[in-house]
Amino acid sequence: MISVDEARTRILSSLRPTGPEIVPLAEAWNRITAAPIHARLTQPPRDVSAMDGYAVVATDAILGATLHVVGSAPAGHPWDGTLQKGNALRLFTGSILPDGADAVVIQENTSRDGESVTITEAATSGRHIRRAGQDFAAGDMLLPTCKRLNARDIGLAAAANHPWMTVHRRPRIAILATGDEIAMPGEPIPAGSIVSSNSHALAALVRAAGGDPVVLPVVADDRAALMAVADAIAGMDMLVTTGGASVGEHDLVQEALGARGLKIDFWQIAMRPGKPLMFGQLGPVAMLGLPGNPVSSLVCAILFLVPAIAVLLGQPPAPPPTVQAKLGAPVAANDHRADHLRAKLATGADGGPIVMPFARQDSAMLRVMAQADALVLRGPHAPALVAGDMVEIIRLDALGL
Amino acid sequence: MISVDEARTRILSSLRPTGPEIVPLAEAWNRITAAPIHARLTQPPRDVSAMDGYAVVATDAILGATLHVVGSAPAGHPWDGTLQKGNALRLFTGSILPDGADAVVIQENTSRDGESVTITEAATSGRHIRRAGQDFAAGDMLLPTCKRLNARDIGLAAAANHPWMTVHRRPRIAILATGDEIAMPGEPIPAGSIVSSNSHALAALVRAAGGDPVVLPVVADDRAALMAVADAIAGMDMLVTTGGASVGEHDLVQEALGARGLKIDFWQIAMRPGKPLMFGQLGPVAMLGLPGNPVSSLVCAILFLVPAIAVLLGQPPAPPPTVQAKLGAPVAANDHRADHLRAKLATGADGGPIVMPFARQDSAMLRVMAQADALVLRGPHAPALVAGDMVEIIRLDALGL
Repeated sequence: MISVDEARTRILSSLRPTGPEIVPLAEAWNRITAAPIHARLTQPPRDVSAMDGYAVVATDAILGATLHVVGSAPAGHPWDGTLQKGNALRLFTGSILPDGADAVVIQENTSRDGESVTITEAATSGRHIRRAGQDFAAGDMLLPTCKRLNARDIGLAAAANHPWMTVHRRPRIAILATGDEIAMPGEPIPAGSIVSSNSHALAALVRAAGGDPVVLPVVADDRAALMAVADAIAGMDMLVTTGGASVGEHDLVQEALGARGLKIDFWQIAMRPGKPLMFGQLGPVAMLGLPGNPVSSLVCAILFLVPAIAVLLGQPPAPPPTVQAKLGAPVAANDHRADHLRAKLATGADGGPIVMPFARQDSAMLRVMAQADALVLRGPHAPALVAGDMVEIIRLDALGL
Repeated sequence: MISVDEARTRILSSLRPTGPEIVPLAEAWNRITAAPIHARLTQPPRDVSAMDGYAVVATDAILGATLHVVGSAPAGHPWDGTLQKGNALRLFTGSILPDGADAVVIQENTSRDGESVTITEAATSGRHIRRAGQDFAAGDMLLPTCKRLNARDIGLAAAANHPWMTVHRRPRIAILATGDEIAMPGEPIPAGSIVSSNSHALAALVRAAGGDPVVLPVVADDRAALMAVADAIAGMDMLVTTGGASVGEHDLVQEALGARGLKIDFWQIAMRPGKPLMFGQLGPVAMLGLPGNPVSSLVCAILFLVPAIAVLLGQPPAPPPTVQAKLGAPVAANDHRADHLRAKLATGADGGPIVMPFARQDSAMLRVMAQADALVLRGPHAPALVAGDMVEIIRLDALGL
């Protein structure tokens, strides 16, 4: 048996990021940059007013001075001249400061009368001015490569004048459920059959991770039909299979695709819930064989498939992110297999997470898996713990998993 | 001036959830249920084997007994007869237990020879059997209404035989940037103009919150063009405007749309960054007027628009979720306006979040806003705090905001 970490390292080290594609700014949210974004302009482009008020020559705009208002320069309508002593220019937030001016007197510190304005608090040189390039200068690197773009990043890219973004192409993940007993939701369900849940849960999980799921039709336990899958996955970045339990987990899949050139590793992983995991290469396509049990399939997908999609999206190889949480109930000592306890989360008095493993950890209970907020990681031979002890958890709630 | 909480309460209390729509299971990830999901079948549908092995009559399958193997029932191929004493049926994980059998002997505790199997560890009645309905029974409520569907929920709905899901229609949020100075990214940028960043950041934020953004063309500071917006928003759930700063924040928008029947509240909110907020009703469409400053616009959108979209999606009215974090640097006492400090997050030795406000909190710096992981909430007149004190934060990193 190999460890979870070793299996993950072997999977992730075999994968290469997808290539770049250009998408419009409006489609770039939550995508991963495949190139850094540099500013195409300077922001602000010139010295601008930070407030509504008047551009003045500071030495001129002393307390009680009355200045001639030569014009008004609302944002978008800059004033072309050079401001002379004795004059003021009406400005608004964001208006370009005219040549000759070196201060802004805010509206509240003036008294306007027709084309004259009287200064009621003296100007200070440089005051209420946002300097050119204060936010960023043309050429500045604003967003690094391999960054997941949030709403603020989109705003920043727009402000830097990018209508298009270069992002990693979404990895195409083919999902194949196999087994004579699998029926599609809504189809007639013969006695002894079960409804396909793995494919649909995995498709949603692929989407949550930033991939593009391609759900293949269910293939019965039939050698010829399985062999044909090798043709169906042209252009995919990865093939994920699930099931085949009825004739020995993975055996038929392995045998049929082996005849089509599948180079495979077949591992017993020291984990629970989980079963033997298959990983290999079918021509240019990486293949991950998940257990048929729905809970095992989801846990293995969280541990192996989500990090694999991250690598395909250009992220560094890494396990799923974990946080520390306080146990709300005791847990027993663990055996030699890493365990992943399904658990609810609550918030403690100190604001930190409190984690409460479900009493029933049966891997056949998909409903309990759906109700979980987190997986508690229990390493091989981890000692018994009491309520209040800290444990490492994978949060599922915020990730859409 | 009114408080952030009061403004939010007024906005949220005026909104009603969108109606339901039916989407295929494959499109239901991250959508919000508009009806509970009940199980359409019982899972497992019958008592099934939890392991690979043999179905037996427990009193019969004592240590050393040799039984006649009457057949094999792989998953998907149930065996029709009633198991008699002296017989065994080959089963696999998930196979239906035949009538007459009351135990499973696992494969490892047997020795097979042709059509005979010898029991090497006695059977126990009820052992290795998953009972009908152990996961769920037909009619059980599996997912409540108003639940955001994660990948596991999709799997559970599939397993319960739902090919379609009833979810809240995505709220359509029209986004309008106004101002003579606004240019679209990639278009020619005249002197004194700035590139529209608010619309695009807001569109991404609407998407992150589960809404459907409709970005309207930029409208210059022109009364007739603004009045025409009243026609452009037919069928929208909300209109969000931003800008108009050049001629007095919101004034022209308010005046032009007022002529088209806009009923409006116009508030000074005791917050920073932020400016006057407009909220009202233009016929059946709620209208939210955000500041033109990009950072203020984003902060106000996080505080008011994201919770508004949640209410439109059927969630209970609530502020954005906050967590407690430890300050990594001192902060000064606050004045009468609630402040929202842009900050970086790190992880402390105890696993808890440590928050480090940026030294420069200038609301003109979009780049700093994009680099922030969190907003530190500083209430009116909050006292000065030192490093190590706890503060309430809104995490931006995980929300795609």
